[in-house]
Amino acid sequence: MTTLRPTLGERELALRTRARRVIPGGMYGHMAVEAFSTAHPQFMVSGDGCRVTDADGREYFDLMCGWGPVVLGHRHPGVAAAVADQLSRGDCLDGTSPLAVELAELLVDTVPSADWAMFCKNGTDATTTCVTIARAATGRRKVMVANGAYHGAVPWCSLRGAGVTDEDQAHLVHFEYNDLASAEAAAAAAEGDLAAIIVCPMRHDIRRDQELADPAFARGLRALADRTGAVLILDDVRCGYRLDLGGSWEPLGVRPDLAAWSKAIANGQALGAVTGIEALRDAARSVYVTGSFWYAAVPLAAGLATLTELRKGTALPDMARTGTRLREGLAAQALSHGFQIRQTGPVQMPVLYFAGDDDVRLGTAWAEAAVENGVYLHPWHNWFLSAAHTDDDIEEILTRTEAAFATVARM
Amino acid sequence: MTTLRPTLGERELALRTRARRVIPGGMYGHMAVEAFSTAHPQFMVSGDGCRVTDADGREYFDLMCGWGPVVLGHRHPGVAAAVADQLSRGDCLDGTSPLAVELAELLVDTVPSADWAMFCKNGTDATTTCVTIARAATGRRKVMVANGAYHGAVPWCSLRGAGVTDEDQAHLVHFEYNDLASAEAAAAAAEGDLAAIIVCPMRHDIRRDQELADPAFARGLRALADRTGAVLILDDVRCGYRLDLGGSWEPLGVRPDLAAWSKAIANGQALGAVTGIEALRDAARSVYVTGSFWYAAVPLAAGLATLTELRKGTALPDMARTGTRLREGLAAQALSHGFQIRQTGPVQMPVLYFAGDDDVRLGTAWAEAAVENGVYLHPWHNWFLSAAHTDDDIEEILTRTEAAFATVARM
Repeated sequence: MTTLRPTLGERELALRTRARRVIPGGMYGHMAVEAFSTAHPQFMVSGDGCRVTDADGREYFDLMCGWGPVVLGHRHPGVAAAVADQLSRGDCLDGTSPLAVELAELLVDTVPSADWAMFCKNGTDATTTCVTIARAATGRRKVMVANGAYHGAVPWCSLRGAGVTDEDQAHLVHFEYNDLASAEAAAAAAEGDLAAIIVCPMRHDIRRDQELADPAFARGLRALADRTGAVLILDDVRCGYRLDLGGSWEPLGVRPDLAAWSKAIANGQALGAVTGIEALRDAARSVYVTGSFWYAAVPLAAGLATLTELRKGTALPDMARTGTRLREGLAAQALSHGFQIRQTGPVQMPVLYFAGDDDVRLGTAWAEAAVENGVYLHPWHNWFLSAAHTDDDIEEILTRTEAAFATVARM
Repeated sequence: MTTLRPTLGERELALRTRARRVIPGGMYGHMAVEAFSTAHPQFMVSGDGCRVTDADGREYFDLMCGWGPVVLGHRHPGVAAAVADQLSRGDCLDGTSPLAVELAELLVDTVPSADWAMFCKNGTDATTTCVTIARAATGRRKVMVANGAYHGAVPWCSLRGAGVTDEDQAHLVHFEYNDLASAEAAAAAAEGDLAAIIVCPMRHDIRRDQELADPAFARGLRALADRTGAVLILDDVRCGYRLDLGGSWEPLGVRPDLAAWSKAIANGQALGAVTGIEALRDAARSVYVTGSFWYAAVPLAAGLATLTELRKGTALPDMARTGTRLREGLAAQALSHGFQIRQTGPVQMPVLYFAGDDDVRLGTAWAEAAVENGVYLHPWHNWFLSAAHTDDDIEEILTRTEAAFATVARM
């Protein structure tokens, strides 16, 4: 691996020029790199373990893990073998793969709040299905959502206004994360029409510190749902499989009625899932949700291999250990360079901000310097660790982030 | 291949028992087989060309092609090689695959109405994105939709009521397919607030004859969109890549402003796309749509291999020829057994109903007999041919449908 990348590569630049002609703005969604960096490559061609390679052949230690999905590392041998094996037989068939039953059984066995499971493709498919089931079950319409929380990128939950009508979000009622009084007020405002409370396991909104859920807040939402007859939906799309295999609020002793899963559940193959309690089985049966690729065998095979590997029990503790070392190392480096920083959220899903850097200008410069030194991370979206990050990888990453701190210290 | 299947297999039955415990209703969406048959297997394990195999090892000639996606046949060598090659390098990375640019370029080169492209996973992602772009472009809210038309399975376009609120569909304005006067009336009802007209290339609603678009109707919708400043969206999810590579209304000389694609565009890998005209590029850039798996390399590699193969020019004429032979053969068989049948829609996407069979009871019995004789087809959803169906396959399929007609003739 080379260590200094002063400019974007030639192939990257050529691809961006071509992309601007045939893709609006040159890219869309969270992969539109120009929205957050002048140094990050937009295009990548390969991955191996905890490393990714861009179009110019530059290799990076990967602290985004495909923005979450890659929990075991790129091209994990066990998952790759399951994928290759199923591909050799078939993928998108006229009927469901029996692997859907196997994976549903394994989820029910792994997730205490799950009596059943359904599969889909996107995280947004899963959150939308949860809300639809909750409305079908309760015959009510209102859905409580935390201010600024991301539950997908379709009109009913979009955080951006373009193309969204007032009616798309007419039944959303907002509360403040970790503020139970605001949640009580939101429930009161819903006046007997409250179908669901949808909530992430922690506050992981972009461009701000992450906040772990206050256990009293989580328990309070559970009690509020019980008291009002609303469905408690845990949006575990981003956190799922990194904090606790049984669901990210298991350590708090709070179990949702429905949970939305995606990202990491098939180590990068396109898969989402909804799990739910027995009392919501009939409602789940009553809604019509489907997609051409939802029953395909290969992502289900990947999902089964991923959960089987994770259930061996070493991956999550490994990520906690390496994440802790990364956090400690970054803290020491910042201190030694005279920077005050904030590292928030669980160590497996870190984010780093500089004190007083409200516009994230310094944070962006540091992230750009990290990329130029061969560590791919984000200035204002949480990062992700994987089980493929070894202790040695973390040390090497820290060597490079040290260089990034040195760069911004010279600015 | 065996020729008679009097009962569901043991593994099928065992899987259904297990599925009922861990999946609501034993299955969801269009794969919930008990909603349409007592004889169709719900579970499938492999596919090869135009054949699929169920959990009990029973092989079927495939006339559903994974409900559309498999346009070149299961495990098509060219697509399989592209998938294996990309898998050997990586799939879900931190940046977009350069293949997104290549595929966007190839779509722009292939589809006359496409000046740009964006990629997603589900057909519903594509239709939802089209509507969002249209609203962003026009600043208007109303969307004209044909009665009974399927544009996806999420609340804004759902055809079922469970879990759907009035507000989800508050801005839909309905018209009757192939009835231009009803479309004019719907546009008038939208009173200057018409953002879009979304329409399928033909009427392919379930449980009824398919109707090709009347060219005057298609041209009339185009003129109506132009006159009102609305965006004409062609939902080519189901028909795309089977009727005309340039878009299913190219033969009519009618070009949409936006088109939604999915199903067949990656021969079974999860991929959707939106294509659009230059005038909508900025609006497409302004909406925030994204998904964790939308930028993954493997489905894009499959999409590139699929379109490259189709552009060689033989697949579509082949499907037209084999579809014509299938239609002629089925017509002759029905006649010889004294049945009046209706075969409607393009020959590559056939459906068959018996005269006077309004509850599709006879049609279901015939479809079940077909399955028992080793041909997988549907009683009331259109079928799909693929380029893997040879003339000999069609003759063998007809031998088996002859047996199915004989079975229902004895009833």
